[in-house]
Amino acid sequence: MNAQRVKIGIVGLGVVGMGVARALRRNRAVIRARAGAGVDVRWAAEVDRKRLAASGLPPECCTGDYRAVLSDPEVQIVVEVVGGTGVAREVVLGALRAGKHVVTANKALLAKHWPEVFTLAHERGCAVGFEASVMAGVPVIRGLQEGLAGNAVQSLFGILNGTTNFVLTRMARGLEFDAALAEAREKGLAEADASLDIDGHDAAQKLAILGSISTGKWLPPSDVAREGIGHVERYDIAEAREQFGYALRLLAVFKDRGDRVEARVHPTFVPLSHPLAAVENEFNALLVNGDTAGPITFSGRGAGERPAASGVVSDIVNIARSLHQSGGRMTYVPMRPSAERALVIPLDEVQSKFYLRFSVVDRPRVLAFLAGALGERDVSIATCHQRGRSETGGAVPVVVVTHAARGGAIREALAEIDGRADFVKRKTVAIRIEE
Amino acid sequence: MNAQRVKIGIVGLGVVGMGVARALRRNRAVIRARAGAGVDVRWAAEVDRKRLAASGLPPECCTGDYRAVLSDPEVQIVVEVVGGTGVAREVVLGALRAGKHVVTANKALLAKHWPEVFTLAHERGCAVGFEASVMAGVPVIRGLQEGLAGNAVQSLFGILNGTTNFVLTRMARGLEFDAALAEAREKGLAEADASLDIDGHDAAQKLAILGSISTGKWLPPSDVAREGIGHVERYDIAEAREQFGYALRLLAVFKDRGDRVEARVHPTFVPLSHPLAAVENEFNALLVNGDTAGPITFSGRGAGERPAASGVVSDIVNIARSLHQSGGRMTYVPMRPSAERALVIPLDEVQSKFYLRFSVVDRPRVLAFLAGALGERDVSIATCHQRGRSETGGAVPVVVVTHAARGGAIREALAEIDGRADFVKRKTVAIRIEE
Repeated sequence: MNAQRVKIGIVGLGVVGMGVARALRRNRAVIRARAGAGVDVRWAAEVDRKRLAASGLPPECCTGDYRAVLSDPEVQIVVEVVGGTGVAREVVLGALRAGKHVVTANKALLAKHWPEVFTLAHERGCAVGFEASVMAGVPVIRGLQEGLAGNAVQSLFGILNGTTNFVLTRMARGLEFDAALAEAREKGLAEADASLDIDGHDAAQKLAILGSISTGKWLPPSDVAREGIGHVERYDIAEAREQFGYALRLLAVFKDRGDRVEARVHPTFVPLSHPLAAVENEFNALLVNGDTAGPITFSGRGAGERPAASGVVSDIVNIARSLHQSGGRMTYVPMRPSAERALVIPLDEVQSKFYLRFSVVDRPRVLAFLAGALGERDVSIATCHQRGRSETGGAVPVVVVTHAARGGAIREALAEIDGRADFVKRKTVAIRIEE
Repeated sequence: MNAQRVKIGIVGLGVVGMGVARALRRNRAVIRARAGAGVDVRWAAEVDRKRLAASGLPPECCTGDYRAVLSDPEVQIVVEVVGGTGVAREVVLGALRAGKHVVTANKALLAKHWPEVFTLAHERGCAVGFEASVMAGVPVIRGLQEGLAGNAVQSLFGILNGTTNFVLTRMARGLEFDAALAEAREKGLAEADASLDIDGHDAAQKLAILGSISTGKWLPPSDVAREGIGHVERYDIAEAREQFGYALRLLAVFKDRGDRVEARVHPTFVPLSHPLAAVENEFNALLVNGDTAGPITFSGRGAGERPAASGVVSDIVNIARSLHQSGGRMTYVPMRPSAERALVIPLDEVQSKFYLRFSVVDRPRVLAFLAGALGERDVSIATCHQRGRSETGGAVPVVVVTHAARGGAIREALAEIDGRADFVKRKTVAIRIEE
């Protein structure tokens, strides 16, 4: 191996892969200076020949078969930017088996196959760079793994999905959900099928990665409690802002509770003075509470060709620098994954304040009934507000903010309340509050 | 060397040194898991015997002479938390000469002796960790060096000094400068002699470090243009907020202008909607504009025992992890410092919008004179505002916001204007604006 040149193979020339090829070209001099060695794209593998042609790479570097990359002994770093958990898994595991370092932006793959990927990497002494998998170019992975390495992480609060944050920001400005989502699509911030974003899967995968780093145990994405924003109504956003000074965010929350952890993604009200309330449109942010550093916030663009390429290329530079320093024979063991799985506290046991909107008939004794159903389960009301009166005996909204209460208590109380079709005209809206 | 235990020596048991000893003890298990090896304090060196006794370290680990640390072949990492550029320099250079890795929080030393320290570290294959030197526990050093390694850094905007940010925040709430500084002292946010903070030296040293990383060339702190906040008046803070929607910050600004750079620390107005306007009290923040990642913001507590200890201990963990991975024989070359010095553009050539407050007699033709003196030097006025009228013929404030203008043009115009003792009753206030 020539430590003065580091050879890489890029598998996948979608938006991110193209961005990586462009950034490597644009910043050739800076990268060489930082890595101490030049970075050469030896291979780009992509089944779409048009994309290969558009990449500007010479034909002898282009292939339709990723196996050409994995079997080339000259390739030291494989960049997996295929996405998904099918071929991408073969690429990552195949590269590690061949003793190659890996850089990937693939949150779905890493979150799901965390122990498999990192156990293999550890056995082979290979690095896995995955800065771009969470918040793209905002260096939160390195920040947690290295920058805050001396801290016990007490909690994480993240706005980890730009599409949903854009939609919620636009709804706070008066748009309905469908119009806000259509605008996100127009701006290229949402896929045609936006369900992975809207339903919170994307944020849950990212939280699983951040939580796994923080605990040193595997937090599977399927264990993250998850609720999307598809049912959020503009009414509640406006009401909570006006009455209580709250902004709505799709918050990813992780808390270390000793033997167990909280791990959840759901629409959440935060005070307008909260640092995450100021994060608007497609921007992402992560607030880390370290026991030693105190509260640290990272923010920036969490998606897009250039931001994602920034995370990927930075990983390439760091691995290339290590290879250069060690004369090409680097053995790099970034993390020995614990065989343990993090134990997640069921949402029913997690305490929060809640915003509740009841749609009830405007009759005496209705409020007594609501307060009674809540009080029987130790849920006490901090504030109660009835908007207007119905002159026709129809439904009116009654909005309540509770003191901290168990999720299960709220669930049971709402089951009883929503069962009373004589009083209650539609399903009660319940949204957690973090302060 | 036993790669399962990494032995360190702490030189200096002031606030930061004590914090490091405490954090190593508090987070023993987390640190062991992350580093893959235990971290033992083999030595603490401190001339004050009372502090040694208060550290809780066993007597056989305590010494009054730092040379005992440097000469012990078992010590792999020397933690320099003495501060200053005298003994601290001997400790850092001595440790590197002895082939030991170094962790330091010493911004003054690093900024001033950058080429000497990193050339020696490079020659000896030793790591120098200095995360805590800028913004304490907020991982901006690692963020710039590694997290954004694939970016050309276009500009940096930092609130790098907590004392001055606290003072300016309190002044915006109505306190005079002296009262705000007294409050900072009461809260332990300012030293008895606060001049290093107030005059901008502390922020200039930190900017020199960030700029040196960004350019790959040495930016000496003495080349950073510097103006403190000692002469800032509450009147201008209130006036600019009310009339123009600006907040005042002591901003550290770095811009890459190709062959040369801008590097300056001075009171600066930013729009209230700017992310740095939301950074209040003793908090610090850094906005990095990377060509690939876009705008990235880091924020948190930039000083104090625990935040500083977080940065130091994180560096220790990262070096210990590398030592463990390589079986104790790590050769680590973090950065080959360029022999080149960054060329700084003189402030006279740097363009900005300016806020100007003239104190002039309330007479016809005064404004024509002001506008003429500015206009002759190609400075055009964007907004002009006269607060009230003087009925006694005394001085009134006339506040002007200019379009972008060269610093030199403003300096020359104000020299002419302030020379007219018949019109102008006191020195004109001039504050740059960044948007």
